[in-house]
Amino acid sequence: MDLEPFRHCFPIALHDTDAAGVLFFAHLFRHAHDAYEAWIATIGFPMDAMLRDGELALPLVHAEADYQRPLRHGDRVEVTLSVAEAGSRSFKIDYRFQTPDGALAATARTVHVCLHRGEGRSCPLPAALSSKLRQLLAHSDRDADRG
Amino acid sequence: MDLEPFRHCFPIALHDTDAAGVLFFAHLFRHAHDAYEAWIATIGFPMDAMLRDGELALPLVHAEADYQRPLRHGDRVEVTLSVAEAGSRSFKIDYRFQTPDGALAATARTVHVCLHRGEGRSCPLPAALSSKLRQLLAHSDRDADRG
Amino acid sequence: MDLEPFRHCFPIALHDTDAAGVLFFAHLFRHAHDAYEAWIATIGFPMDAMLRDGELALPLVHAEADYQRPLRHGDRVEVTLSVAEAGSRSFKIDYRFQTPDGALAATARTVHVCLHRGEGRSCPLPAALSSKLRQLLAHSDRDADRG
Amino acid sequence: MDLEPFRHCFPIALHDTDAAGVLFFAHLFRHAHDAYEAWIATIGFPMDAMLRDGELALPLVHAEADYQRPLRHGDRVEVTLSVAEAGSRSFKIDYRFQTPDGALAATARTVHVCLHRGEGRSCPLPAALSSKLRQLLAHSDRDADRG
Repeated sequence: MDLEPFRHCFPIALHDTDAAGVLFFAHLFRHAHDAYEAWIATIGFPMDAMLRDGELALPLVHAEADYQRPLRHGDRVEVTLSVAEAGSRSFKIDYRFQTPDGALAATARTVHVCLHRGEGRSCPLPAALSSKLRQLLAHSDRDADRG
Repeated sequence: MDLEPFRHCFPIALHDTDAAGVLFFAHLFRHAHDAYEAWIATIGFPMDAMLRDGELALPLVHAEADYQRPLRHGDRVEVTLSVAEAGSRSFKIDYRFQTPDGALAATARTVHVCLHRGEGRSCPLPAALSSKLRQLLAHSDRDADRG
Repeated sequence: MDLEPFRHCFPIALHDTDAAGVLFFAHLFRHAHDAYEAWIATIGFPMDAMLRDGELALPLVHAEADYQRPLRHGDRVEVTLSVAEAGSRSFKIDYRFQTPDGALAATARTVHVCLHRGEGRSCPLPAALSSKLRQLLAHSDRDADRG
Repeated sequence: MDLEPFRHCFPIALHDTDAAGVLFFAHLFRHAHDAYEAWIATIGFPMDAMLRDGELALPLVHAEADYQRPLRHGDRVEVTLSVAEAGSRSFKIDYRFQTPDGALAATARTVHVCLHRGEGRSCPLPAALSSKLRQLLAHSDRDADRG
């Protein structure tokens, strides 16, 4: 597993913008989730397989974003994803959206809980996922200390 | 059952528009489907119940739209829905999108087939639905003849 | 101006849900913004007119949501909107999403700043808007005290 | 300019699907437009620059799609874009959506007209764009003849 921060790039499409000429705020969350889906597959837990075959889901219980600068049609965006917290039944993911000039356009956070779908209640994260999240969290913290 | 054409109203929201200042074309289909969901519930076949409880679905196999005039943020839109064709395994729905001044902004059509979800293939429409669609189609035709 | 809490109703459409069978989290923000657009028009500041004619915009600088219970296709949702904070250059709006049985499905908050579009920087809210927001805030606080 | 068919790949994200477990039909058009935006930039006419700086736009006047097979969460999709018609004031684009096994999942077509934004009416395509579209069309036809 690669311990480097996960990066996901996308352009601001016409349908991401609105008549005010900038990204419609809610679409940032769609892009955050695209990054999350790509990332969780790279650490060995592809969401589609989990949802289709398994008893578990990792629904969001919280989402938030701060918008620093407007994003416009055609802007190239790089989102960097990191593990912000890794509990036994939940975890938090941080997202930083930057343009090629390095300017921070937005940040976001999502909080996920492990849900037993049949029983409709939270349950412990699979041990392998929990272990990977903790390993990535430790690595993020070291990066932050050096930063 | 009411045989009058089904009408569904909605405003063009900020998120419906794009940086060109007008409705992003694909969102017209979202609004058409909202009208379709509202309509099919009124004729006794609510989609959510059908999908949740039953073996059948009515997926789209074709969708099309023609855009006559741009729709802008804040425009009030009335969509009129009518049955354009009612077969034994499929049906066609027409949509007319008008602004309060009576101007035609767009038209759309969707074609739906009856799908047996377990078997993954088409099957006859439920007799009650088929019968209602034919009744509505006959009524639409009379309207058109008078029009 | 009506000082009662503003209510906006909508059904969970098929396109609001995802393959996990529940509302895709980002779409809650779309619905919150629909409620916001409807509300701000009722207090005399329709967004479309503001964006089209004026120099000012009220972009979001923060958005967050907490998801208490899954929302499913066909659920009827009532969102109640209230002013949570009213500053000279920004304001905060709270949203409560409830199902007909009174259960709280989600809450959200958006933070808006007044932006001078030409200069690309924040500016004081129009006096009339600021005054209305403070009046609504005072009323919300009284409701909360009584609650 | 590369005369080979333009290809654009994307995964079916969770938000592309609905509670029926498959791609919500309207989202196919969003993906078609993403391919279109990527393609038109490669032939030298990036949409964002055209919309931001110029007097011209290329709005859609027609869109249609046929759905052959359901697309599911996690499916990898390749869309192949080709010029289907190149007139003096309008053009048609065809899209084929295929999964990695080569199966055709859907086709779509969009029709665009050249619009003078200030005057709000159609106008001739820029000569350079018109010429490129005809060149690509001729190449597509040769491909089809050989096919």
